[in-house]
Amino acid sequence: MQRTLISETAKKTGEKVELFGWIDSIRDHGKITFIDLRDATGIVQCVGEALDKVSVESVVSISGTVVERPENLINPNLETGKFEIKIEKMEIVSRAAELPIPIGGDGADIDEGLRLKYRYLDLRRPRMAKNLRLRSKVTTFIRNWLTKKDFVEIETPILTKTTPEGARDFIVPSRLQPGNFYALPQSPQQYKQLLMVAGFEKYFQIARCFRDEDPRADRAYGEFSQLDLEMSFVEQEDILRLTEDLFSDLVAEVFPEKKISSSPWPRISHKEAKEKYGSDRPDLRKDKNDKDELAFAWIVDFPLFTEQSKEDFYHGSGASRWAPSHHMFTAPRPEDIALLDKDPGKVRGLQHDLVLNGYEVGGGSVRIHDAEIQKKVFDLIGFSEKQKEEFAHMLTAFKYGVPPHGGIAPGLDRFLMVVLGESSVRETIAYPMTAGGTTAVMDAPSEATPDQLKELGITVRGK
Amino acid sequence: MQRTLISETAKKTGEKVELFGWIDSIRDHGKITFIDLRDATGIVQCVGEALDKVSVESVVSISGTVVERPENLINPNLETGKFEIKIEKMEIVSRAAELPIPIGGDGADIDEGLRLKYRYLDLRRPRMAKNLRLRSKVTTFIRNWLTKKDFVEIETPILTKTTPEGARDFIVPSRLQPGNFYALPQSPQQYKQLLMVAGFEKYFQIARCFRDEDPRADRAYGEFSQLDLEMSFVEQEDILRLTEDLFSDLVAEVFPEKKISSSPWPRISHKEAKEKYGSDRPDLRKDKNDKDELAFAWIVDFPLFTEQSKEDFYHGSGASRWAPSHHMFTAPRPEDIALLDKDPGKVRGLQHDLVLNGYEVGGGSVRIHDAEIQKKVFDLIGFSEKQKEEFAHMLTAFKYGVPPHGGIAPGLDRFLMVVLGESSVRETIAYPMTAGGTTAVMDAPSEATPDQLKELGITVRGK
Repeated sequence: MQRTLISETAKKTGEKVELFGWIDSIRDHGKITFIDLRDATGIVQCVGEALDKVSVESVVSISGTVVERPENLINPNLETGKFEIKIEKMEIVSRAAELPIPIGGDGADIDEGLRLKYRYLDLRRPRMAKNLRLRSKVTTFIRNWLTKKDFVEIETPILTKTTPEGARDFIVPSRLQPGNFYALPQSPQQYKQLLMVAGFEKYFQIARCFRDEDPRADRAYGEFSQLDLEMSFVEQEDILRLTEDLFSDLVAEVFPEKKISSSPWPRISHKEAKEKYGSDRPDLRKDKNDKDELAFAWIVDFPLFTEQSKEDFYHGSGASRWAPSHHMFTAPRPEDIALLDKDPGKVRGLQHDLVLNGYEVGGGSVRIHDAEIQKKVFDLIGFSEKQKEEFAHMLTAFKYGVPPHGGIAPGLDRFLMVVLGESSVRETIAYPMTAGGTTAVMDAPSEATPDQLKELGITVRGK
Repeated sequence: MQRTLISETAKKTGEKVELFGWIDSIRDHGKITFIDLRDATGIVQCVGEALDKVSVESVVSISGTVVERPENLINPNLETGKFEIKIEKMEIVSRAAELPIPIGGDGADIDEGLRLKYRYLDLRRPRMAKNLRLRSKVTTFIRNWLTKKDFVEIETPILTKTTPEGARDFIVPSRLQPGNFYALPQSPQQYKQLLMVAGFEKYFQIARCFRDEDPRADRAYGEFSQLDLEMSFVEQEDILRLTEDLFSDLVAEVFPEKKISSSPWPRISHKEAKEKYGSDRPDLRKDKNDKDELAFAWIVDFPLFTEQSKEDFYHGSGASRWAPSHHMFTAPRPEDIALLDKDPGKVRGLQHDLVLNGYEVGGGSVRIHDAEIQKKVFDLIGFSEKQKEEFAHMLTAFKYGVPPHGGIAPGLDRFLMVVLGESSVRETIAYPMTAGGTTAVMDAPSEATPDQLKELGITVRGK
């Protein structure tokens, strides 16, 4: 007999079905036993007599007949509440021991370390399963929306070169060149700009990015996903409008219960944001208690440079007082180019930050596409000749016909955190790391073997 | 004035347009100059007088009028051959120096190292641009096809735990736990099985995988992409049928010029393949000169174990002569379970390899979902207690209600290589590494700074 999904049982009243799933709950009334059976499509009540003893969360198969419930036993809260399965046979496929964490409720009272250790159980929690399903809906929607607009999705490398983009790199020792290291990309920034040089004009990717920064509620440790996109022959206005259209359509389709506070989204200069709201990511919701309100806003006209601080992981920080406010590929406003020589602190960049309910959920810019201006920026942020050498490929690429280009990179985890009303990005990720950098379920990082270290030409200090 | 795409010019005869793009070729006839202008959507001939000197591959904007060509000057080989642009104004946006590699032709005669160094130019080559656009079409098709069948796309971690899955790991030193290491995943195998334990039932991901193995024409060094998928409550037959439907529909939609040799695809036992074809990935094309023939086949009934060899990077190779033929999570055929104790070499596994034109383009299996059988397999492949400890989370997970499950992981790069008729997977990847493990465009691997090494608690030997 073929498996019937629980979502299909409603159409099968009077028919024999075979269901597979997990035992969501059991009510043993002596002779008669009620079982709520759960699969990926729903929950249905099953009733049987003289059943084998079975524990909650065991996997079973149940053969039986779909019968209508008497009027007084209908459960209006359940999609399948008008009927039940009269069990003819139940087989235990995989018995469940007592669970180490409860999976009912929202899990907020359970130690997060335990939730991550048993993530495969934690993801049975309806809230978590729903979050991941919505995440998949969001990426599907984004991909199809951009594909319809002729964007090409292109995968860029994970094993790449260390580049001073503002955060700490993860590095990977090379076996073929012992003593040398790859770096994991902080973003595909250079690769996507080079795709513009290659002539693709419209690129996107749901890209994995890696930053060895201390975690926060709105930042997962180690890796995160961003919608990375870039366009050629565009001005800042085009990027803002495309992003606004994309997210407005996304919210309407995937989160129809949400209301966007104001459209078009407010555009606020960095200066005004600081003066009026004391923040460059102001929370513009009209009613902060409204869980369905989404207040998007653009922050624009950032200064191109900020003063370097000792906390900056900005590698070029020796010879100059300037660090890039966004990153070193951001173009200055054309009318401010003359100020690069005279008063760099006054130069405004063509940067745009996407803000949602007080969170920065994305940033981007129009990029420099002129080698001379790029060189000038490298000088202003104090790059040594050696550091310039590390970006020589960008200056070289700029010699062979470069279109004006720009883009944006909304963070997927953080956007989902805000729109789902979660308190941490980890509630939107299948297997996030703990705050201490330990992987979910598996016990990493862990020791490497002496053979591995030898092949890679490295040793662990103190061993 | 708004930009007109070259693909839109055909509809604008008699109208003024502004085009942006690259100069594909120039023919200077003295007073009059012919320019073929290229953008991401096409090529069009532009004609002007007294134009500024400009080099091929420079980026320009051209304003002009779309005019019909006289009958005798129509170019039937060009979509835009019936008309041309009468140039009123041309502005040079970005001048191109002489290119270090030619971008006409298929590039087969150019040193691959040079092609990768200037990949942003190499990707202007029509063949390469087309390959990447088709790659994007393929992944879009696959994603939508699976999504319609209620599969959920779930991202799994890249920073994870080292596990002995048969190849060499890349490892990543941890700053938060100096002296310990993450590993990059050889595949999301365990994570996807744990998603089945979590109850998602249908999972997929276009997953990045990492193996530090020597490169071959059909294997990129370092990283590759696979369509990773897993299903619960299925038998091997369900996995084969789904995969066959998916790839048949994909070929019909994205590669309509291709013909699949025989449907349903032949299923050949491992034994028969070896005996009849001398290979477990036979090339079943009827005509090996037909570039549009695709001969898919299934190889099944593999032995569960093979004899370990010294070349195996199989970590548990000390105490036993057996290594998993696929991987250590593959289920034995139910009727062969008794042989695990008596004659392990005779046990057949529920493994399936997807073969296309003589290449293995995917492999998968029904997995073990019973902790006792999994333990037995760990023993047979000679796992030490410490190694078993490293997989304890799988055995633990198997205690809490596990559905029968299985899946497959077709390699995206290799499938594309075969279907596009390319001689190397690198022709299907935007920025592949060289055979020597050096990154495209950027010069990695490279030295880490003393500060980085110190933070990570490692030293480079001999320094």
